[in-house]
Amino acid sequence: MQNFDYQTPTRLIFGKGVVDKLPGVMAQFGKRILLTYGGGSIKKIGLYQKVLELLKDYEIVELSGIQPNPKYDPSVLDGVRLCKEHNIDVILSVGGGSVLDCSKAIAAGACYEGDPWDLISYKVKAQAALPIVDIITLAATGSEYDCGGVISRTETNDKIGYLDRHLFPHTSLLDPEYTFTVSRKQTAAGIADAMNHTMEQYFVEDSTLLNDGFCESMLRSLMVNGRKCLENPEDYTARAEMMLACTYGCNGILALGNSPSGWPCHGIEHALSAYYDITHGEGLAIITPRWMRHILNERTLPRFVKYGINVFGIDASRPPMEIANKAIDETYRFFESIGIPMHLREVGIDDSRIGEMAHHIAVNEGLENAYAPLTEKDIAEIITASL
Amino acid sequence: MQNFDYQTPTRLIFGKGVVDKLPGVMAQFGKRILLTYGGGSIKKIGLYQKVLELLKDYEIVELSGIQPNPKYDPSVLDGVRLCKEHNIDVILSVGGGSVLDCSKAIAAGACYEGDPWDLISYKVKAQAALPIVDIITLAATGSEYDCGGVISRTETNDKIGYLDRHLFPHTSLLDPEYTFTVSRKQTAAGIADAMNHTMEQYFVEDSTLLNDGFCESMLRSLMVNGRKCLENPEDYTARAEMMLACTYGCNGILALGNSPSGWPCHGIEHALSAYYDITHGEGLAIITPRWMRHILNERTLPRFVKYGINVFGIDASRPPMEIANKAIDETYRFFESIGIPMHLREVGIDDSRIGEMAHHIAVNEGLENAYAPLTEKDIAEIITASL
Repeated sequence: MQNFDYQTPTRLIFGKGVVDKLPGVMAQFGKRILLTYGGGSIKKIGLYQKVLELLKDYEIVELSGIQPNPKYDPSVLDGVRLCKEHNIDVILSVGGGSVLDCSKAIAAGACYEGDPWDLISYKVKAQAALPIVDIITLAATGSEYDCGGVISRTETNDKIGYLDRHLFPHTSLLDPEYTFTVSRKQTAAGIADAMNHTMEQYFVEDSTLLNDGFCESMLRSLMVNGRKCLENPEDYTARAEMMLACTYGCNGILALGNSPSGWPCHGIEHALSAYYDITHGEGLAIITPRWMRHILNERTLPRFVKYGINVFGIDASRPPMEIANKAIDETYRFFESIGIPMHLREVGIDDSRIGEMAHHIAVNEGLENAYAPLTEKDIAEIITASL
Repeated sequence: MQNFDYQTPTRLIFGKGVVDKLPGVMAQFGKRILLTYGGGSIKKIGLYQKVLELLKDYEIVELSGIQPNPKYDPSVLDGVRLCKEHNIDVILSVGGGSVLDCSKAIAAGACYEGDPWDLISYKVKAQAALPIVDIITLAATGSEYDCGGVISRTETNDKIGYLDRHLFPHTSLLDPEYTFTVSRKQTAAGIADAMNHTMEQYFVEDSTLLNDGFCESMLRSLMVNGRKCLENPEDYTARAEMMLACTYGCNGILALGNSPSGWPCHGIEHALSAYYDITHGEGLAIITPRWMRHILNERTLPRFVKYGINVFGIDASRPPMEIANKAIDETYRFFESIGIPMHLREVGIDDSRIGEMAHHIAVNEGLENAYAPLTEKDIAEIITASL
């Protein structure tokens, strides 16, 4: 087991009606709030109006229009400018993981004098950040319980996962009822996202019975409850369990003491969505089984066998390579069965920029150090197999 | 799923050699430290000397002799007095869960003007507590990652689990190598303690696939690694995994959103060790299978069936009641196989005070509201069956 240094200080307030606790949560900060949100779905579900009513005694500055795969320019830059202009005390992020990821970059940028990209690109280490409170309306990224965010910079095709211990939300409010109206497409993408977060931590050289069991439980829970959410979008119990499972995806609790994995599917998918702005969870679902098939060999076989038996219940008495291949088939079939388009061509990606993307990934993502090391050629082959 | 409000802010620094990070951790507090420890095992393993050397620039006041089932009088009272006399800035607890539990009560008492028992007995709510740093030398209680402690008051036979959000350790340093010298008896008691913590959260009315999977992983991991620790006390990997598993025992992460369980085995065992000062983990191991047999009925059957199949690998095609009974037998046999005396008589408890203890438990532990409600008669029967 590897040494580790671990802390997740965020307070999770979870369940029906918990948004009513917002005034009590916000009372410990100052009076000036930057309210961040996306394209307006929070208005359709009445959450925007509820938040304004609950916080009518506060001075609220708004940053709206934050997109999926949130953009450095304009969203992060606008947010930082607003924080500085209005001397903001706290950021309130209302929406999904993209809004929260963007809010984290803003929180750090607001406490830094230079170009916020210095922080996101790790040129400069953040010394402080504004406190962040969030209300999550989409079960997927786990941003509500981790200290990271992913920011895209369009002109350079960069999509960077930015982590800093100052960026844990102070408090995350999670009411599963606000996920009832999430579309089939986004629900499925969320399931795939959280499942892939788990797989990225499961496929490692050195793990434990404990962590493997946690990951396998996550995957089984996400598949069972994810399906129920799609069948009945207002199934509170299923939405709640999916929401809770998603919170564990990226804060490290599933892999304490494990050897590093390199998060290879994320490394590849970040380039796909930086170049083509596809839905992150869909990109991950498409890449995952092709990555699995590519790295399956005698060395990695035991992990796939364990995965197949414990996650999909494949008969343990079958030959190991058969179990492994069946596990990969089952992974593909599950994603397909929840309605995810399983070919890159279906989400608008052709073969014209594969070489360019593979080179970008090989240079920037460090996948030569992943659990199963990937060269530029490997990466190009995985993307090609995903077309 | 039930609503919840959850936070575990403690920083865990885990692995070989992490005690060397102590000066960096302590630097953020003041210069006056109360060093708490037990009977002197930390001197035998050289940890005491190492800590003093690392902290030679600090003013250190010592409170030693803290016993298992730590006592309000003298330990908590002495610690509070020392903190006030010496204007202590931070408590450094070095030892097992008992030392840390005691340190938590001291930390709260040091910031309170009245009798510390007011806090422990929940007559008064703590408003503050001194910061606590700990070095854990025994894998068992999980006190290093929760906000609770158990304090015994001899003259009233009270043994109270005291929880307060101010009592999370600021930082816990866990080096599995310091557990190499833990005796067979204490290693086995630690395994049983952490397993029972998990079972207390598993046997509930309303749970999730996710939480059930986490708990089942905990139990399998603790059994496999616990056995390895007993076979080879210097097996680093096994000691490390056991130590990590134990940290999750009591901070709630295994049961977020579950309906309450009432922690019935703890309710009963606390009285046994308050009256007879037995080893907590042994008491739990003795009570657990008898409690299981007592509450097994048509209503609770499905939980026992799940437990038997997923934890012990019992053939799922057998009749449910057979699976459940076999699961209880396996629980008993596991504890017996790691050398725990499985009868109360073996740890010095006879039938002379059963009525008195059962009454004390029924009045104080609220077990009429447990997952399987227990009356005074039920409690007496469980204790009697454990003789």
